[in-house]
Amino acid sequence: MPELRKDPIVGRWVIIATERAKRPVAPRDEPVASGGLCPFCEGSEVHTPFEILAYRDRNTKPNEKGWRVRVVPNKFPALQIEGDLHKRGDGIYDRMNGVGAHEVIIECPFHEISMANLSEDNIREVLWVYRDRLVDLKKDKRLVYGMIFKNVGALAGASLEHSHSQLIVTPIVPISVQEEMDGAQEFYDYRGRCIYCDMNHQELATEKRIVLDTPSFVSFAPYASRFPFETWIVPRNHNSHFENIQKNEVDELGTVLKTILLKLETALDKPAYNYIIHTAPLDSQAVPHYHWHIEIIPRLTRVAGFEWGTGFYINPVPPEQAAAYLRQTEIDLTAPSRR
Amino acid sequence: MPELRKDPIVGRWVIIATERAKRPVAPRDEPVASGGLCPFCEGSEVHTPFEILAYRDRNTKPNEKGWRVRVVPNKFPALQIEGDLHKRGDGIYDRMNGVGAHEVIIECPFHEISMANLSEDNIREVLWVYRDRLVDLKKDKRLVYGMIFKNVGALAGASLEHSHSQLIVTPIVPISVQEEMDGAQEFYDYRGRCIYCDMNHQELATEKRIVLDTPSFVSFAPYASRFPFETWIVPRNHNSHFENIQKNEVDELGTVLKTILLKLETALDKPAYNYIIHTAPLDSQAVPHYHWHIEIIPRLTRVAGFEWGTGFYINPVPPEQAAAYLRQTEIDLTAPSRR
Repeated sequence: MPELRKDPIVGRWVIIATERAKRPVAPRDEPVASGGLCPFCEGSEVHTPFEILAYRDRNTKPNEKGWRVRVVPNKFPALQIEGDLHKRGDGIYDRMNGVGAHEVIIECPFHEISMANLSEDNIREVLWVYRDRLVDLKKDKRLVYGMIFKNVGALAGASLEHSHSQLIVTPIVPISVQEEMDGAQEFYDYRGRCIYCDMNHQELATEKRIVLDTPSFVSFAPYASRFPFETWIVPRNHNSHFENIQKNEVDELGTVLKTILLKLETALDKPAYNYIIHTAPLDSQAVPHYHWHIEIIPRLTRVAGFEWGTGFYINPVPPEQAAAYLRQTEIDLTAPSRR
Repeated sequence: MPELRKDPIVGRWVIIATERAKRPVAPRDEPVASGGLCPFCEGSEVHTPFEILAYRDRNTKPNEKGWRVRVVPNKFPALQIEGDLHKRGDGIYDRMNGVGAHEVIIECPFHEISMANLSEDNIREVLWVYRDRLVDLKKDKRLVYGMIFKNVGALAGASLEHSHSQLIVTPIVPISVQEEMDGAQEFYDYRGRCIYCDMNHQELATEKRIVLDTPSFVSFAPYASRFPFETWIVPRNHNSHFENIQKNEVDELGTVLKTILLKLETALDKPAYNYIIHTAPLDSQAVPHYHWHIEIIPRLTRVAGFEWGTGFYINPVPPEQAAAYLRQTEIDLTAPSRR
């Protein structure tokens, strides 16, 4: 059973996950394995654990062909769904059992390595799957946070190239999320407004960090970007929980996400990247101070090793320059997709 | 002039440093350049900016041969020493000029790429140089924090292989340091003791995470290790500021640091790594709740991209296993050093 341990100084929880040491990661900075059998491709269903959810064509059976988007447990999970938390002390330290969920969202049945090459409808279905999984896991009262993220490329921590995302659901709120919630609460207490709504407002007014401006979303390079070409997609409609997203927003977000990813891939020659959906804890009510959004972080330089460890970031590309470059980057949304 | 910008949500300051974009970093994950002219080697003094400090043999001149440890300004500085802070708002955002210092500590005149291969005396002189620089920069009232760190290997962000460390001095306290100070203060307010002293006590009592136990230092794998083989060196004597280190401690730390680095290099086949000296702000008095220490973080896996971005760490190697392995790793401290 993996274990959750708390750093006694800063309160950060860490997953000590012995199972994951067994997974087939390439050591050091070797490229992501390609070629050979891909366990995420249609026809390889037997090579993954049983599916948790799939959007399927009519008259097809679970764990067989016919799916469009498929969710399976991670074969080398960081957390396990069975058991109770058994919170306990260890001298001055605190720990609990590593109860939670670790799922893989396989985004397409064919071997496509870039989400940007999926059709807008395909991306919309992936977004609906994200929502469905969060709504389902919300029922489990042991679990309080659902973090959806994507690693693309070896530098971003991916070990398989077939386009996929991951969901880690934890019994505690991750410290980065808690810090965001606290900071946003403080701003709200002082100004009476949501900081993210304020950011949308200022970004739209000044325009210089805007990457894409659409009816329901503002996509921009944040003022204090940690990384070159860091890009946030923030809904205009105030909503603290991603799982409360509206249908018109999913429709538009499919296009926005594809556009931003295509721009990043074109401008930066298919960089490794991570995206993370920042959303309020599963067990919280809708709040006026927090605002869900997506943060996309290209992994362009090796410079960040030290910065990541200390919270002390040095970014050589001003966000105004990055945004201007991405705005000018031409892409073809009508290029043929695999579906 | 580089700019310091504050993230309005979590309060993290970021250096937007346009000068550094020009420096010769290898793109993506290419190895650190080796061969060719090394600007840090003896005889290449003309290829660095003028030295700030050097420990030299008698009758040798600044910026010529004869130095043993040498400090120069970083040629591509993240911050600049001239000018005033000019703190100002930008709508809801905050910023100030990127005033500060960015120095390189060249640890030896010959082309040695591993600090572990330097003699214990050489390492002691490097430690004295760290102290001298902090004491000197403390006089500048614009500057409040001095962060000493080392990047080794491409995966850890190094762009030159000749053994060196860096010092970044900032006009604000980095958020990771502030969080540590706050967490330690909270513990002190509640329990009336220093959390680091308590950790030393518990680690020595249980022994299972100890890597090395010497008269003045406790070296251990921390309970909530974020990374495999993460190792902390904590002085037994309570002291919040590294620059107040005693002579007997420097003498011993030379041996302890060489031992730990040799063990990590032997056990993990010369991994990329970072170390960071965690110390209290330059402008603060000695405090009872904070305790300077060194954190060494090997960069073994590519898995951490996502974790570093979110504060949500998954560590596949329990610290008890890592410590046991390092304890058993035999090294030869008497192997010939270059000096």
